[in-house]
Amino acid sequence: MKMKTEVYALAVVLWLCAQTLGALAQDNIHLDSGWSPEDSAMVSEIHDHILGQGRCVEDLRVLCKDIGARLSGSPEADDAIVWGAKTLREAGGDVRMQTVVVPHWERGEVERAWIRLDGGEPEPIRIRALGGSVGTAGILEAEVSVFSDFEGIDTLGPNGLNGRMAFFNRPMDPLMINAGGAYGGAYEQRSKGAVKSAEHGGIAALVRSLTHALDTFPHTGGMRYEEDVRQVPSAALSTVDSRRIATWIKEGRNVRIGLEMGCVLHDDKAQANVIAEWTGSEFPDRYIVVGGHLDSWDIGEGAHDDGAGIVHSIEVLRALKAIGYQPRHTLRVVLFINEENGNNGGKTYAQRARERKEWHVAAVESDAGGDAPRGWSIDATDSGTEAVRAWRESLGGYGMGDLRRGGAGVDIGPLKKEMPAGKRPLMVGLRPNSQRYFDYHHSDKDVFENVHPRELKLGAAALTSMVYLLDQLNYDALD
Amino acid sequence: MKMKTEVYALAVVLWLCAQTLGALAQDNIHLDSGWSPEDSAMVSEIHDHILGQGRCVEDLRVLCKDIGARLSGSPEADDAIVWGAKTLREAGGDVRMQTVVVPHWERGEVERAWIRLDGGEPEPIRIRALGGSVGTAGILEAEVSVFSDFEGIDTLGPNGLNGRMAFFNRPMDPLMINAGGAYGGAYEQRSKGAVKSAEHGGIAALVRSLTHALDTFPHTGGMRYEEDVRQVPSAALSTVDSRRIATWIKEGRNVRIGLEMGCVLHDDKAQANVIAEWTGSEFPDRYIVVGGHLDSWDIGEGAHDDGAGIVHSIEVLRALKAIGYQPRHTLRVVLFINEENGNNGGKTYAQRARERKEWHVAAVESDAGGDAPRGWSIDATDSGTEAVRAWRESLGGYGMGDLRRGGAGVDIGPLKKEMPAGKRPLMVGLRPNSQRYFDYHHSDKDVFENVHPRELKLGAAALTSMVYLLDQLNYDALD
Repeated sequence: MKMKTEVYALAVVLWLCAQTLGALAQDNIHLDSGWSPEDSAMVSEIHDHILGQGRCVEDLRVLCKDIGARLSGSPEADDAIVWGAKTLREAGGDVRMQTVVVPHWERGEVERAWIRLDGGEPEPIRIRALGGSVGTAGILEAEVSVFSDFEGIDTLGPNGLNGRMAFFNRPMDPLMINAGGAYGGAYEQRSKGAVKSAEHGGIAALVRSLTHALDTFPHTGGMRYEEDVRQVPSAALSTVDSRRIATWIKEGRNVRIGLEMGCVLHDDKAQANVIAEWTGSEFPDRYIVVGGHLDSWDIGEGAHDDGAGIVHSIEVLRALKAIGYQPRHTLRVVLFINEENGNNGGKTYAQRARERKEWHVAAVESDAGGDAPRGWSIDATDSGTEAVRAWRESLGGYGMGDLRRGGAGVDIGPLKKEMPAGKRPLMVGLRPNSQRYFDYHHSDKDVFENVHPRELKLGAAALTSMVYLLDQLNYDALD
Repeated sequence: MKMKTEVYALAVVLWLCAQTLGALAQDNIHLDSGWSPEDSAMVSEIHDHILGQGRCVEDLRVLCKDIGARLSGSPEADDAIVWGAKTLREAGGDVRMQTVVVPHWERGEVERAWIRLDGGEPEPIRIRALGGSVGTAGILEAEVSVFSDFEGIDTLGPNGLNGRMAFFNRPMDPLMINAGGAYGGAYEQRSKGAVKSAEHGGIAALVRSLTHALDTFPHTGGMRYEEDVRQVPSAALSTVDSRRIATWIKEGRNVRIGLEMGCVLHDDKAQANVIAEWTGSEFPDRYIVVGGHLDSWDIGEGAHDDGAGIVHSIEVLRALKAIGYQPRHTLRVVLFINEENGNNGGKTYAQRARERKEWHVAAVESDAGGDAPRGWSIDATDSGTEAVRAWRESLGGYGMGDLRRGGAGVDIGPLKKEMPAGKRPLMVGLRPNSQRYFDYHHSDKDVFENVHPRELKLGAAALTSMVYLLDQLNYDALD
């Protein structure tokens, strides 16, 4: 028999019309808010251009697939610098290199580990040396003690570990809504775990990967040593392995872990920030900088971290050129080097800017991945913060209206420190959806396929819009 | 040589502290806005409970993997009804079935297609019959004409197609930011393409899949016939095939497509809405309904559409029970049947509610997938809309502050129509991130693995929070 679908279909069509009108309203919502009609038209044009003709997805494919992982000091980082300069030139930029001395650490050819449970046969497990770790100089095997926090290990005496390995197993807090906050809350066990282990007589530090994902991928990341504390190797375990090892230890079983890591720290190397400059028509001696970091960790492809920020930033230049915009302030797109293990790119850029007394009125960073934009993190004076907040309704129409005060990015961070009060830039960082970012972050999973093409383009459009809007501000009126 | 990482590490820690403080502020931001301190505490507790102990991910796994696709009328839909009732009972609900007569369409065993280019050998291509389509009664093969809109086909005379197939190839508009709006803009070629083809002498309608994704998966979905218009078969092509076929035709090449589809429409069948009722303490005769739809299309697993809404809704009941809440109004969790091809579940529910003169003060739906929540679509009077808008800052602290007027959901839609003015419910629909939803929608890709566990939980917490907040409203004060 025939379905009586007409009424239903009509309801669906009406609902879809409502949705469509809602989407149109989204394009008009800013008319009654903090933007001028010109601003509304520009931000709309920027979105249309990038969603329709943006090339950031193809740029990211090339960066991830033709170059791949690109840790500071590596030949791949050299390749990325050459590619970045070429791509910025093709986008219409006046490009130069700014030499930066970077560390050159390698995990080496050998990286393996095994578990020996209750004295049985060794079972291989996946590890990833943390960036900057020393190697094992042969094979290490020892019993493992598990800690959920530093207080636990601090209750042990100076030789409390007595040749064992410390395993730091605190998960990222699942109750925090912002995954970045949860990352921050578990971060110290990765950065300081090796020092804590050595201070208590441990011979190595193992760290639960900093991710909400429950899977078998270890996530690397930076760690550091301290003067006068013995340097012991440090490696990440996957969350699945972390969970089972902690369970075994809790059950009173004997868990020994073996490590062989060939990490080596070479001499520092000269690499570069890549800078495209576009002279401003009204304020050529005032600078707006936008960027991300070109280096990545040495596993995966650095797709979200921070390939996304790099191709977002290149698209800013390409899109503003394509739609015929002329910036009022001098715009610099900067592909920073060495964010992951030293931040020498950001520090060098800021030092040179200070030496040349360049007034950076604003600095924008994309280093939180390629997922759909949600808003901005603002690091500015009260008046600068209010200037951005005045756009909130309008930004909301494009899905990027969630504004919070907080750090704007590691690469641009030193500009704040280097510049005198009154000349510190209004700094904003793009805040995409954070929920999936740490699934990929610093692991073999951070690959091109895990970046959503439309969401990447929306991020590029968001970044371009923010640069345009910041170019329209009157910085003499801000304190 | 040793890396000078101390200063960098300190900067990172400070940045992370700022991020953490930002995340904490997120939990406090609502103190100065539209929620009472009790509301703030409850919404925080709801989020903590669901993020920490929620079972919606496991529920979705069972629904997707143990039952799978569950089109109205199918044995799998029967299984889903039994599972839904059992799961709601285990969550503490007083459960009953509400009989609903539903259509029973099947695509049948045979579903294949091929392209014959320039009279050459047939090359198999993937198709999916649209839901409700007639079968081909054997094999059809004909030349294809391509149209980007209905105006194109309407310029043809009544027999303009003369035995050819019409292929509707309009993509979803990539420039619309809301993917739901882009879906609405391309929807009619799927729903009405077969009628348009038949009206112009066509023997079938082929439709480009309604998705932004460029891949090889056809996406099915509802279509309809009209009285007095010949019923011709209709099927979806993948976007990759659509693009190459359109290119060939544009190049003047001869494209013939063959179809064999065994679709069959059986007699209507009795299935059911599953309703869990929880009597209100203050207003037992006033109802708040929350739900999604239990049926799905017959391919994939209906994970986002609308397994997510089902497990969100079940979690509302479970979480409110677990934290010891007692609703003021009578709360009904409804797992609607037959949203996809008839909406008889929604219509039957609304008709019974009208017959029994049940005042539904509010209705909440989750039928836009399991991705991270962003906000709400509000379908209400001005005063109802303002009541929800007063919570905007507070909702924003949880990432769900993007509020727009618009349709709230197909299942709850008939409540608006059936109820007299003044007794229409305040209706809200959860709006998750829309960018990826149509990648999966109505296709083999809509499976459990493509739902992000934390984002699903955040959706459940959003829905539960909204139900709690709506239960706190004074409906006598709203017009």
